[in-house]
Amino acid sequence: MKRAVVLLSGGVDSTTTLAIAIAEGYEAYALSFDYGQRHQIEIEAAGRVANTLGTKEHRVAKIDLRIFGGSALTDNIDVPKQRSETEIAHGIPVTYVPARNTIFLAYALAWAEVISANHIFLGVNAIDYSGYPDCRPEFIKAFQTLANVGTKAGIEGARLQIHTPLITLSKSEIIGKASELGVDLGLTHSCYDPSQEGLACGQCDSCLLRLKGFREAGIEDPIPYAKKSKGR
Amino acid sequence: MKRAVVLLSGGVDSTTTLAIAIAEGYEAYALSFDYGQRHQIEIEAAGRVANTLGTKEHRVAKIDLRIFGGSALTDNIDVPKQRSETEIAHGIPVTYVPARNTIFLAYALAWAEVISANHIFLGVNAIDYSGYPDCRPEFIKAFQTLANVGTKAGIEGARLQIHTPLITLSKSEIIGKASELGVDLGLTHSCYDPSQEGLACGQCDSCLLRLKGFREAGIEDPIPYAKKSKGR
Repeated sequence: MKRAVVLLSGGVDSTTTLAIAIAEGYEAYALSFDYGQRHQIEIEAAGRVANTLGTKEHRVAKIDLRIFGGSALTDNIDVPKQRSETEIAHGIPVTYVPARNTIFLAYALAWAEVISANHIFLGVNAIDYSGYPDCRPEFIKAFQTLANVGTKAGIEGARLQIHTPLITLSKSEIIGKASELGVDLGLTHSCYDPSQEGLACGQCDSCLLRLKGFREAGIEDPIPYAKKSKGR
Repeated sequence: MKRAVVLLSGGVDSTTTLAIAIAEGYEAYALSFDYGQRHQIEIEAAGRVANTLGTKEHRVAKIDLRIFGGSALTDNIDVPKQRSETEIAHGIPVTYVPARNTIFLAYALAWAEVISANHIFLGVNAIDYSGYPDCRPEFIKAFQTLANVGTKAGIEGARLQIHTPLITLSKSEIIGKASELGVDLGLTHSCYDPSQEGLACGQCDSCLLRLKGFREAGIEDPIPYAKKSKGR
């Protein structure tokens, strides 16, 4: 059976990516990160998803990105709320974690090398890559080149592939794809700033994109919200 | 002043690399890793070196590579002793940590991005790249490409450069260079398998290469050894 390391945050995109890898016949090794986020809810969601969808293994690598600071997701910078679509679509957001995908893919590559997997799946998509430099197709291509020159497997002739099955899809298309594959998106977590009880805020960029995606897909979002944004 | 992130393990190579960066006029931000090594002596050496040579900052990122296993440096695999030069020179050693330089450079890149440094220094050299895939010039070049497409700085037009000033040098040439720059190599640590008191074993690949390098450079190694290999 073909083995793949799948990066799994527990959000809609990585969950759908995992479902696609499994549907394509890969034995999935899910990898999540505990990177000093403000909350553990994301990691719990990843665990639920990994269990329910059926991975061979799920590991959580504890890494400390806070020592570098520089992002609203790891620092004490306020998560922006109720931004318009134009604001969300333009420029690099304050929730950007420097070199995050480079670090995540480097860990995935280490694990892939240990278990002799030649495939890594990553749920980056069209929305991400308008804002995050390390979600663009050029970046993925450059990492794949790196993986093939920088590992034992690569220089011994294995062909390491980075799969990004969502890269051209919008959020609503991703949600449609998840629905097709029978994935329960109620297991997932997207909010950057959940309440103490773990409810999604409904107002950060991530919640707004998620809600809009479900609306456009004509599907109801199964998760509860502390406060759903009106009129968007 | 030009800023540079310098990867610093506290060994001869990274210490010499730091001295070169400083001599070339860079403000140095030294980065070490606590990656579940068997011993903390390496990190202590890095701290001594950073203090003595004069860095702007020295940070130690705690990362857990043990969750993947696969190397004598992080697993319970025996460190090989008294290997011949031919054995050391050929093939990928069991001390190889999967994707280690990819992970280290990814962290360096994150820090570089936060402090707006366009330079990263790494002490890989001709001896390393005969054995480790992620020390070869092709790998360094691939990482530099990645750094320029995968970061905010890169896409905004900054030119991120990965410097490997030792890449064509042998161990004895590196030791000669350090001596020229007035670096006290007595501060450094190289052994893969030190004694409880922190003495270098004198018999692992790293000690053997170090001792040979000093001998060929015609310089006495200032560090004490538990047991120095005879006749080599």
